[in-house]
Amino acid sequence: MRILVLGGDGYLGWPQALYLSRRDHEVRIVDNLMRRAFDLRNGFDSLLPIESPHRRVARWREVTGRDIGLDLVDLADHEALSSVFAAFAPEVVVHFGEQRSAPFSMIDREHAVLTQVNNLVGTLNVLYCIANQAPECHLVKLGTMGEYGTPNIDIEEGFIEITHKGRTDILPFPKQPGSFYHLSKVHDSHNIMFCCRTWGLRATDLNQGIVYGAVTAESAADPALHTRLDYDQVYGTALNRFCVQAVLGVPITVYGRGGQTRGYINIRDTMRCVELAILNPPGPGEYRVFNQITEQFTLLEVATRVAKAAQGAGFHARVEHTANPRVEAEQHYYHAAHTRLDDLGLAPHLLSKDRIRSLLDLVAKHIDRVDATTLSPTVDWRRTRNPVSQQAKGGDR
Amino acid sequence: MRILVLGGDGYLGWPQALYLSRRDHEVRIVDNLMRRAFDLRNGFDSLLPIESPHRRVARWREVTGRDIGLDLVDLADHEALSSVFAAFAPEVVVHFGEQRSAPFSMIDREHAVLTQVNNLVGTLNVLYCIANQAPECHLVKLGTMGEYGTPNIDIEEGFIEITHKGRTDILPFPKQPGSFYHLSKVHDSHNIMFCCRTWGLRATDLNQGIVYGAVTAESAADPALHTRLDYDQVYGTALNRFCVQAVLGVPITVYGRGGQTRGYINIRDTMRCVELAILNPPGPGEYRVFNQITEQFTLLEVATRVAKAAQGAGFHARVEHTANPRVEAEQHYYHAAHTRLDDLGLAPHLLSKDRIRSLLDLVAKHIDRVDATTLSPTVDWRRTRNPVSQQAKGGDR
Repeated sequence: MRILVLGGDGYLGWPQALYLSRRDHEVRIVDNLMRRAFDLRNGFDSLLPIESPHRRVARWREVTGRDIGLDLVDLADHEALSSVFAAFAPEVVVHFGEQRSAPFSMIDREHAVLTQVNNLVGTLNVLYCIANQAPECHLVKLGTMGEYGTPNIDIEEGFIEITHKGRTDILPFPKQPGSFYHLSKVHDSHNIMFCCRTWGLRATDLNQGIVYGAVTAESAADPALHTRLDYDQVYGTALNRFCVQAVLGVPITVYGRGGQTRGYINIRDTMRCVELAILNPPGPGEYRVFNQITEQFTLLEVATRVAKAAQGAGFHARVEHTANPRVEAEQHYYHAAHTRLDDLGLAPHLLSKDRIRSLLDLVAKHIDRVDATTLSPTVDWRRTRNPVSQQAKGGDR
Repeated sequence: MRILVLGGDGYLGWPQALYLSRRDHEVRIVDNLMRRAFDLRNGFDSLLPIESPHRRVARWREVTGRDIGLDLVDLADHEALSSVFAAFAPEVVVHFGEQRSAPFSMIDREHAVLTQVNNLVGTLNVLYCIANQAPECHLVKLGTMGEYGTPNIDIEEGFIEITHKGRTDILPFPKQPGSFYHLSKVHDSHNIMFCCRTWGLRATDLNQGIVYGAVTAESAADPALHTRLDYDQVYGTALNRFCVQAVLGVPITVYGRGGQTRGYINIRDTMRCVELAILNPPGPGEYRVFNQITEQFTLLEVATRVAKAAQGAGFHARVEHTANPRVEAEQHYYHAAHTRLDDLGLAPHLLSKDRIRSLLDLVAKHIDRVDATTLSPTVDWRRTRNPVSQQAKGGDR
């Protein structure tokens, strides 16, 4: 199939492009390099060294003989995006192309507005391009489990049957997102659902949990094919960041009490989930939601598992609680359904000691690249103006 | 109290400013004149002639001796809005300042993006100004009943208690909005709810139904104080438009079968509802929702009532069904709770024959100002590119 991967230069977009290319799909990447620009401006960097997008696709061609197209286009530029649609006529659009950091969106007003406008306008442009130029195209959109928040009832996959005052309906699951970033995904979900209903588009909204790991079969084939691995306070997600702290020998920092429970997924399973969505498309007008997680843990559980695995490998790892920069429940009920992808054939890679161990090994190999000053949180949800880095020397504007 | 009225030059914002000024509040208007610009560009106009904002406030001073401040500022311009906050230090912000037409938002991609970015960024800027400069300030935000859509269960006021698999929680009522405009209000609601929870702001979200009427006690005091009355296909809401059709002697056009049921409210009750919200503020961190309607009708019922009242007044009124340009259920269950404003003391002006009659009289007085070509819908929800007017000669960009 002809598959457009939006955000195809990112942490997940890049290995996803490789994964699909390897499976004989015709793949084209669209990216505006916004993620790289943030690092350049703020002095942050991926733990694994990554090549330029141009070298990446060149190397992929050398290694496999396969072509991946590359358009350095901003989704906010409708005209440019429309040209890509005209040239490529995608059958599937996999949409990773959004600002994806919650702390980034909470830095200050500018970052909140940037996050919401970037994500909202980009996705609206994608929806109009599909409606106008490729109405049969299947939109596979990356959402987040964070859209749901932490309700005191079981979380279902996108919709819930509600009986109220003697009447029953199946309605969108109520959303309680916890940052301007998570809010942007909720806005997207509502917009996409509407376009499916009104224009007959077909879409799968993958509400993804916290992804960990940095290696896929394809990205491991050559150093120039590696994907990024973020450990900093803005873009580094919990488990990846904990591994870096463990190897560095600094405390593994759990925000608050650590009872925050979330769904997690291995990067390899993300690849497969997107493929399963593609291979089993929804019908015209159908908007469906899959919860893309394989297991759930409290933050403290994740930290403890990392600490134990690290100790087993000879590192002096210990867990420490720090003030929580976020406004969130630290002890709460959490149970999220995730059967729809399993039903399509997902065979999960669960979080084992061995998997943590190999992530620790990978981190150890590159530990001299770590800038420890980027680990501690500077972005406090309760403040409306935050520094981006400890040094607070200007930075991302 | 010091009350900032955002969108204070509009259909409801203007009479609301007068209403509050008359009751001894210190009132200041913020408006970017976007609503007037649309008419200028497209050759549309208010049925009632309206004065410039400058003359309006000058006349109000002449008639009552009271001052209303006027800032021609765009809410998207954070710096300018922040200056207004610094100068005025509002205790209440009444927020009518959004693009409010569903057909406008469905014209094409540009109008969809304009609507959502305008409304979202404006409201984010208001939230940041309150958080940074007036954290005790009460935000009274105009939402819409259209956020809920038409679920097959009773609509509650913002939140619903859900029991699911043996557990119970009170959660945001699921939203199923029917246009990019209605979606923008859903986005706002989620953003405001989050800011109340995270920053301790206080907000009342008034989910308003379809407003009819054009006269309030204050606006009737002088012709220069009249508010606008829209009858066209883009900004004219059902009942007001039906009255113009009845007086013109053209068919009263019901979109589709006419079973579309919605909540309605008289313009005078809108004034009072906003006042009731102001007089009974929520506590810090509280986000509350009132459904601002007084009764509910099917579209066909409204049309029939207007036709009967018009016939009684000697007009040759008749109801006609036309193809529905919208994608919506035309026969559905609808029951929306609206007790919270009643509990605070609202004494509704219900839709009587006399009230329709006086609206018909007002319309008849200005019927020579009608441009009948603006009545028929040109904006079809199923199309992604629509002309703004029958002539389709360029228009609003």
